[in-house]
Amino acid sequence: MLRTKVFNQLARNGASRLMSTATKLTTVEVNDKTGIATLTMCRPPVNGLNLELLKDLKTSIDEIESNKSRGLILTSSNATIFSAGLDILEMYKPEKERIRAFWTQLQEVWLALYGSSVPTAAAINGHSPAGGCLLATSCEYRVMLPKFTIGLNETQLGIVAPKWFMASFLSVLPQRQAERALNQGRMFTTEEALQIGLIDETANSKEEAVEKCAAFIGTFAKVNPLARALTKQQFRSADLQQLENERQDDLEKFLFFVNQPAVQKGLGIYLEGLKKKSKK
Amino acid sequence: MLRTKVFNQLARNGASRLMSTATKLTTVEVNDKTGIATLTMCRPPVNGLNLELLKDLKTSIDEIESNKSRGLILTSSNATIFSAGLDILEMYKPEKERIRAFWTQLQEVWLALYGSSVPTAAAINGHSPAGGCLLATSCEYRVMLPKFTIGLNETQLGIVAPKWFMASFLSVLPQRQAERALNQGRMFTTEEALQIGLIDETANSKEEAVEKCAAFIGTFAKVNPLARALTKQQFRSADLQQLENERQDDLEKFLFFVNQPAVQKGLGIYLEGLKKKSKK
Amino acid sequence: MLRTKVFNQLARNGASRLMSTATKLTTVEVNDKTGIATLTMCRPPVNGLNLELLKDLKTSIDEIESNKSRGLILTSSNATIFSAGLDILEMYKPEKERIRAFWTQLQEVWLALYGSSVPTAAAINGHSPAGGCLLATSCEYRVMLPKFTIGLNETQLGIVAPKWFMASFLSVLPQRQAERALNQGRMFTTEEALQIGLIDETANSKEEAVEKCAAFIGTFAKVNPLARALTKQQFRSADLQQLENERQDDLEKFLFFVNQPAVQKGLGIYLEGLKKKSKK
Repeated sequence: MLRTKVFNQLARNGASRLMSTATKLTTVEVNDKTGIATLTMCRPPVNGLNLELLKDLKTSIDEIESNKSRGLILTSSNATIFSAGLDILEMYKPEKERIRAFWTQLQEVWLALYGSSVPTAAAINGHSPAGGCLLATSCEYRVMLPKFTIGLNETQLGIVAPKWFMASFLSVLPQRQAERALNQGRMFTTEEALQIGLIDETANSKEEAVEKCAAFIGTFAKVNPLARALTKQQFRSADLQQLENERQDDLEKFLFFVNQPAVQKGLGIYLEGLKKKSKK
Repeated sequence: MLRTKVFNQLARNGASRLMSTATKLTTVEVNDKTGIATLTMCRPPVNGLNLELLKDLKTSIDEIESNKSRGLILTSSNATIFSAGLDILEMYKPEKERIRAFWTQLQEVWLALYGSSVPTAAAINGHSPAGGCLLATSCEYRVMLPKFTIGLNETQLGIVAPKWFMASFLSVLPQRQAERALNQGRMFTTEEALQIGLIDETANSKEEAVEKCAAFIGTFAKVNPLARALTKQQFRSADLQQLENERQDDLEKFLFFVNQPAVQKGLGIYLEGLKKKSKK
Repeated sequence: MLRTKVFNQLARNGASRLMSTATKLTTVEVNDKTGIATLTMCRPPVNGLNLELLKDLKTSIDEIESNKSRGLILTSSNATIFSAGLDILEMYKPEKERIRAFWTQLQEVWLALYGSSVPTAAAINGHSPAGGCLLATSCEYRVMLPKFTIGLNETQLGIVAPKWFMASFLSVLPQRQAERALNQGRMFTTEEALQIGLIDETANSKEEAVEKCAAFIGTFAKVNPLARALTKQQFRSADLQQLENERQDDLEKFLFFVNQPAVQKGLGIYLEGLKKKSKK
């Protein structure tokens, strides 16, 4: 009902169409029956959020928004990782202009996803630490596969999740639970996440997770889309406005922090560990 | 102890007195033993909140407040409906002056009820959608009869519950549950409402519901009324102040929205449906 | 790892050191193995918070903060009372200068404890009403012994817990539960407190309570202390800032209230009751 535009048709399992082919690190498929768009992150090996993936995410969210899809399901093409979070390489010995663009783009993605006017859900088909958890908690609903972990583990890495990461987390969990989890940098197993309310359902496969996300989005079938969007906005506008007001400050704070010698040293050690791991 | 004024005595079940007879769409009875006032909405057929009922509600709340009753129990004279919410006839093809008075009066009722210095409780003896749910969640305690429904279902009707409706709802439910329920325009059954915490207790009859409300108000028997009122105010003043600051804006936003052709058309279709129903 | 300073060594059960001997109403012991400081209130008979105890509490918190202890555990030397709250004698027929110093010192203690950069936990080894509950809820974790009570019961005493008491309480409980509890001035038993989430665990002895607090603090062992402190600050800075902005107002409001004849009369009656009790 809401889909009025014609997209580039693509014979992919018959019932869905690929909206965009220019995008390389994300794909968007719209289900013909339901009108729901599935946005898939495809940046091997771990969907590390670098500048390019963030740009493609923003473009895809905007496409879905302007095509008036019935909903957005965020998922990963990787079998075990939803998103490993911010790409450490963007932060280690950063080039001045690029790191500014990187953080600005991350702000853009959050503003677009957390503030999206269409219903949003995450099919979390793999581990989802830090930035991965930010994306998942910016959606309105979460379905997760078993035996993975999710959480804002920034303090474990010696960094601080900014206020807007907190805002997404607080839109899901009570302050008591949110504060403790972020202070500890705690990663929750799928089971723990379900129990505390960090996710809404579990599923045994990616397909089932996507189906359950679609079922959640389906609960809005008889709801007026404009009234729904304005209602959601009323709940989220204070958080969104706060980042809008503090974007420059937020960027400068991030740059100051990331350029601390101790943080750079920590990132170096971390990357060294990753290299050794991958050589084995 | 708190009741010092003499009211117009009325032999109604011996133990209670009718405070006001001028009021036509509401009655207020004060229980002689407990000092608790029961405020009953009596506008057949569904306690639709029109300008007159809202005026009478405001007058009754003010009476109870100034008579320093021990508490206020809000209920309905109808056997199956607590209140059906805002009277659609006030919004369909509205007369300019009257609709302004109508919305202003609704703001007044909320400010008086949500900000009341006396303990408040709702004996929800019937369905309680939209404005009915607003009244119920503006009280401090809720007891509901089985097999009815309650919720802010505005988005189902294509309209948006304003921020202060949200504030009442958020004083009862966590943000996560509140946002999802309002986005969906979800109506909860009595059982669902109890489980999520939208109501506090169930009762099998109106009498039992009123008794349970009185028992809640009785928990304040040994509490200093002024200290209690100031404590409650500290929790609610930010919400109350926000509407005070934005009253004019809030009114203009409502008028703009209600005068949209699409909204008027929707209301017309809705009313047509009601007429046909009543003819059967 | 975090303890770099040398303290005055004291042979107390071999594994801990007394940091300060000048302090008379509080003691601070640092466990050599864990680096965690235990701060004990020792003002018989009930750890009533008078000006001197508050000063010593502030000094001890500052010591622990500047000595970069791994954590702070707050407890009592009394076998049945954690702290009975504000010392009524400070408020009854008060001397003008002293009562100003008293309230200012209470503000200082709260700002230091609620805003502490080190992990904090309360081993609640006795009753914990009013100001005792404020101290406990200003910590990040609570372990309580059975058969005691805890709560902000100010309205029962005819007084009002100020906004920052509410802030600590709201950092632990949802708004719905917090508002009802404070309006009622409700005291929770250990079991009730556990169920509602006002405490996190129970323990059968003070030793076990301290151990469980230490285990909670141990969950931060692998967390970067600076990142943790900044994350905690982000959750609590709005509350802390609000009191900083309103300190003078908050003091004047307290003085105005406490000097009301009705409040003075109530305090007098209360003290008379205590005297009679102690004579028996």
